[in-house]
Amino acid sequence: MDLELYLKERRGWIDAALEARLPGPGERPGTLHRAMRHSIFAGGKRLRPILCLAAAEACGADPGIALDLAVALECLHTYTLIHDDLPCMDDDDFRRGHPTCHKVFGDGIAVLAGDALQALAFEICGEREDGGVYARELAVTSGSRHLVGGQVLDLEGESKQLSLEELRFVHLSKTAALLTTSVRFGGRAAGASEAQLEALTRFGQASGLAFQVIDDILDVTQTTEKLGKSAGKDLDSSKSTYPALLGLEASREEAHRLTREALEALAIFGDAGSALRALGNYLLERDY
Amino acid sequence: MDLELYLKERRGWIDAALEARLPGPGERPGTLHRAMRHSIFAGGKRLRPILCLAAAEACGADPGIALDLAVALECLHTYTLIHDDLPCMDDDDFRRGHPTCHKVFGDGIAVLAGDALQALAFEICGEREDGGVYARELAVTSGSRHLVGGQVLDLEGESKQLSLEELRFVHLSKTAALLTTSVRFGGRAAGASEAQLEALTRFGQASGLAFQVIDDILDVTQTTEKLGKSAGKDLDSSKSTYPALLGLEASREEAHRLTREALEALAIFGDAGSALRALGNYLLERDY
Repeated sequence: MDLELYLKERRGWIDAALEARLPGPGERPGTLHRAMRHSIFAGGKRLRPILCLAAAEACGADPGIALDLAVALECLHTYTLIHDDLPCMDDDDFRRGHPTCHKVFGDGIAVLAGDALQALAFEICGEREDGGVYARELAVTSGSRHLVGGQVLDLEGESKQLSLEELRFVHLSKTAALLTTSVRFGGRAAGASEAQLEALTRFGQASGLAFQVIDDILDVTQTTEKLGKSAGKDLDSSKSTYPALLGLEASREEAHRLTREALEALAIFGDAGSALRALGNYLLERDY
Repeated sequence: MDLELYLKERRGWIDAALEARLPGPGERPGTLHRAMRHSIFAGGKRLRPILCLAAAEACGADPGIALDLAVALECLHTYTLIHDDLPCMDDDDFRRGHPTCHKVFGDGIAVLAGDALQALAFEICGEREDGGVYARELAVTSGSRHLVGGQVLDLEGESKQLSLEELRFVHLSKTAALLTTSVRFGGRAAGASEAQLEALTRFGQASGLAFQVIDDILDVTQTTEKLGKSAGKDLDSSKSTYPALLGLEASREEAHRLTREALEALAIFGDAGSALRALGNYLLERDY
């Protein structure tokens, strides 16, 4: 399969669905809706929605049946980025080479744009016949015990050294939780069996952790230019990272182990899982 | 009926349900969970949850069947207060005589505590068998076209004079929308008819607008001590208010008209609506 073409096609679908779903830039209050759109259309890779669609496909369904959920996942993810970038959190001025929401619209509007994107994610879940199931899972994933909780520990890790167990919690919470929900949403929309949902969960957890460990490694070894955000920042502020806690080589071994675990979980899907498998490779076989 | 006793009893139920539902202060991350609890247990009147339970009762049901939804409404409401109080928004140091969340825990944790309370509200909705219906309505109410949208226009109104139509949008969005959802949730949990849900909607809209107009009036006419927040602040910053746009007398007439409209909507409930009627009176028959 031609992965570049596949990714481009999927991004096209997702961008069109986001365009159709977000309130127009002229709708009152225009400032808010422009701020939401600024961050939604700021060059995101659409990783979570693409994984959602691929998981639906792996379970034998037309990926289009999960397109609404893919949009919800991207809204939820984008809300967390907007809030994480705020001066009172990670204080980032740029993301993917674009000025962050609060740099363009101010802190107050950025907080509110994030809030509204969170609400929109749940609105979309709630529109499904079995919307409660999706709303509940997305809420648990994004709540105080996972996504938001991970960001808190991450913030606290800036001023004190986290233990490996705490760092693992941060990575599981901040990245693996929403990746897992992304593939589970696709599977659920496709009517996946319990065994299939469990395999998707294992894939999401392992690939999310692997992705984050690799990010930590690349942050230490790469430059600002290549990543499009301030590289080396995590090391400068003696922030807790895998390489800082385990060393570079052991971190690489951990990333390899998690990558194998993620890909092995997909065996159950046979040929239907080939796109999901290719995505796993694409995500995790980076040069680290 | 003894309204004071009634309110005390209902607050007791709601506080116990909140206590049981919020993650414990020792659960990781403790800072976050303490911040969520700080604002949830900061002396709120529990107006929205009490209205929710009373609406269930008005529709002939045991109010206990809506207690989970009452908790969700208070979580949602509290999240909006935490974010509204932030320095980048209304910048309030105190609410109901207590220091606001960001004063105690810092701005970053306050943003995240609000985020997590929003997620928790949807988690609770999603746990219902027909959870999608509740998640969807709560999301629309709290999203960019209502609650959050109202806050944006409110922020913008600090630097420019809003028109009466814009101010009405702010009040409908910021207050009436969630009051309406509160009574509709109670009604829906009780299996209300379409006519009953419509009556609850009319009650919520009119009483929410009336409440806000009265708040505007009291803000002009009362002192800091009595309100427990910085009174006169709205007038000082030439913020848009009903009295500023309509004058004090016309604002009072508008409040009276809306109060009548709200109470008349409850006629359909007969005796079962007596608690809801008493609450309407309690809310709206203030000394203005």
